[in-house]
Amino acid sequence: MSLIVQKFGGTSVADPERIREVADHVARTRRHGDDVVVVVSAMGKETDELIRLAGAVSKVRPGREMDMLITAGERKATALLCMALHDLGIPADSFTGSQAGFITDNTHTNAKILELRPERLQAALRDGRTPVVGGAQGVSSDRDVTFLGRGGSDTTAVALAHALGAHSCELYTDVPGVFTADPRLVPSARRMSTISFDEMLEMTASGCPKPAMRSVEFARTWGVKLHVRSAFTWEPGTWVQEEEPSMEQAVVSAVVHDTSEAKVTVSGVPDQPGIAARLFRLLADAAVNVDMIVQNTSEHGITDISFTVPHDDLPQSEAITTALATEISASGVSSDAGIARVSLIGAGMKSNPGVAALTFETLAAAGINIEMISTSAIRISCIVRQSQVEQAVQELHTAFGL
Amino acid sequence: MSLIVQKFGGTSVADPERIREVADHVARTRRHGDDVVVVVSAMGKETDELIRLAGAVSKVRPGREMDMLITAGERKATALLCMALHDLGIPADSFTGSQAGFITDNTHTNAKILELRPERLQAALRDGRTPVVGGAQGVSSDRDVTFLGRGGSDTTAVALAHALGAHSCELYTDVPGVFTADPRLVPSARRMSTISFDEMLEMTASGCPKPAMRSVEFARTWGVKLHVRSAFTWEPGTWVQEEEPSMEQAVVSAVVHDTSEAKVTVSGVPDQPGIAARLFRLLADAAVNVDMIVQNTSEHGITDISFTVPHDDLPQSEAITTALATEISASGVSSDAGIARVSLIGAGMKSNPGVAALTFETLAAAGINIEMISTSAIRISCIVRQSQVEQAVQELHTAFGL
Repeated sequence: MSLIVQKFGGTSVADPERIREVADHVARTRRHGDDVVVVVSAMGKETDELIRLAGAVSKVRPGREMDMLITAGERKATALLCMALHDLGIPADSFTGSQAGFITDNTHTNAKILELRPERLQAALRDGRTPVVGGAQGVSSDRDVTFLGRGGSDTTAVALAHALGAHSCELYTDVPGVFTADPRLVPSARRMSTISFDEMLEMTASGCPKPAMRSVEFARTWGVKLHVRSAFTWEPGTWVQEEEPSMEQAVVSAVVHDTSEAKVTVSGVPDQPGIAARLFRLLADAAVNVDMIVQNTSEHGITDISFTVPHDDLPQSEAITTALATEISASGVSSDAGIARVSLIGAGMKSNPGVAALTFETLAAAGINIEMISTSAIRISCIVRQSQVEQAVQELHTAFGL
Repeated sequence: MSLIVQKFGGTSVADPERIREVADHVARTRRHGDDVVVVVSAMGKETDELIRLAGAVSKVRPGREMDMLITAGERKATALLCMALHDLGIPADSFTGSQAGFITDNTHTNAKILELRPERLQAALRDGRTPVVGGAQGVSSDRDVTFLGRGGSDTTAVALAHALGAHSCELYTDVPGVFTADPRLVPSARRMSTISFDEMLEMTASGCPKPAMRSVEFARTWGVKLHVRSAFTWEPGTWVQEEEPSMEQAVVSAVVHDTSEAKVTVSGVPDQPGIAARLFRLLADAAVNVDMIVQNTSEHGITDISFTVPHDDLPQSEAITTALATEISASGVSSDAGIARVSLIGAGMKSNPGVAALTFETLAAAGINIEMISTSAIRISCIVRQSQVEQAVQELHTAFGL
């Protein structure tokens, strides 16, 4: 008998029938002899709907009030799931983030967990009850309701698995696991049975939508084994865990793509110390989420700097960059919203210098131009035309025999 | 400058536009120089929708989980109203029942307030902010979320007005005040500008739907002046307050009717001490909400007992009554769902013996048979056929010159 944390995303609890199916699954796990702590997100698209409602009511949306509003969604889901569990003879109690012991900072809409005091959950478990916790929520040191941000339910689940010493943390979603490429683009894409924390992190950072990156970071830090799996087929999915030396190491594990970003380039930048630092400090202070950064080797004392940002942040990024370019007498600023990123992820890459070469050869053979390149020890990312990204993913998936 | 508690019911905040109108009104009150504490109900029919959702998910609905579910509705409304106030430049903070300091017992779905510690609201007021409190909610001594029941937002508002020493408590609703009769039945019905607590209590107990009876009881106990008014026309409504000796006293203030109950009669009951006590103890233990009780004078050692109950409680009441009737050898039990009650309310009735006579004469002249009669110092209620209640209200409204 062990303790398992089971987290169910919005699509998993989208309507009464889905909630009853989730309750069935939790009940099966309990009857199998394991203790369960459940974490739920808001039903279906409810969080989006609440944000839309806020927009219809007011132009200003103070963080404190947005958090009070949005966390109502998870409350509903916890209470309904508890009722469905009672209906199956499984005693269950709902807990808000505050009741579950999540103490956070005061950064509304994107709060950080400072401390977790899960005494009430432990007491419920001792009484043979199943706690159902609202995802992505907590209470600040000012005693206000806080929201951990989109995808925060995964973080709630991993933090609870760590604090309660759970055997593992199951993240139920609407896909059956982590794939070698997006199955909508690559029909032959394969579900991986295991993946290391490092690879999973690179994949989420490179566009793989689930699980939320922050929860993977926490899981890696705390050594919490994740099991990403489907709440629709209930089949085993993908384990995310410490790389085991015995694990057979594929050179490349997966191809990931991302079409959510745009590119900004400052050309003719005087190659002096501190200019890149100033640029990215200005962007950071404006809360622009800069992702990939590439600076070419300097020639003749001038250089180009390119970076990618989410589409929504493009206008602001252009404005900031243009102002700085004028000040430092750079030759110009250009931007491009028609890009996409394709990335190869694989822990085996570290000791295999041929991966980059094969990547570039494959894309070249397909007539796909590479506009930017960035690499880490276990990742190669190429910026290509958005219109060619689907083909790029397919060609690379085949070339690396995934 | 004084402090006013303003409570807005579900129809007053049913959609974004209504929420903005309510914010406008609160802002006007603030700019007039008064401090305001706002209490809101869930938007429109949201509470009904949440209850429907619970029914779709589960056959069992534990009170603790129902309260967690239902209170989500008021949370949303408080946050949205705060945003709309910020939009108008009025700093406002939302508070759950727990944050507002409502400590209750553990009677889920219908909790009673044990204590009110509104320190956070007082601090917000000192800072020049407008607190917006979720109606009908609190936290139990077990630290669970509790719901005060339907109509509980009125109670929240009255309790806050008392605890904060407010000048008055404004209950905003979808009608412009308290009327001498239901305006849908009697087009000439008149809004009363003032009414005493006693009369208001008798009216709510006799079928007048607003304000909630419990809040009127509390207001009377604590001497909180109520102002029942419209959130659609924003015109002054009806003041409910201590009867002032100088107040000109109408003999009869209003005609109220109620079609929500059914009648049960046990006939041929042996007239022995303790039989009525047993019957109504059995019904109370089954949580049947018995309203009007009439026992006729005993003749020849046997008597009839009639009482009214909500339609929903009728089958259970018949079963309980029939079982007891057999045991005590009563001659029979009958029930009737086709009844209605018409009541005359008036503090002036106390010293005016002609009211009962005129009531009975008026109904007789209209050919309306009276099936049961019950009176208090300031009320006369008659049970009549449901099909004749509209006519009864109209005839009495005219006969008493309302």
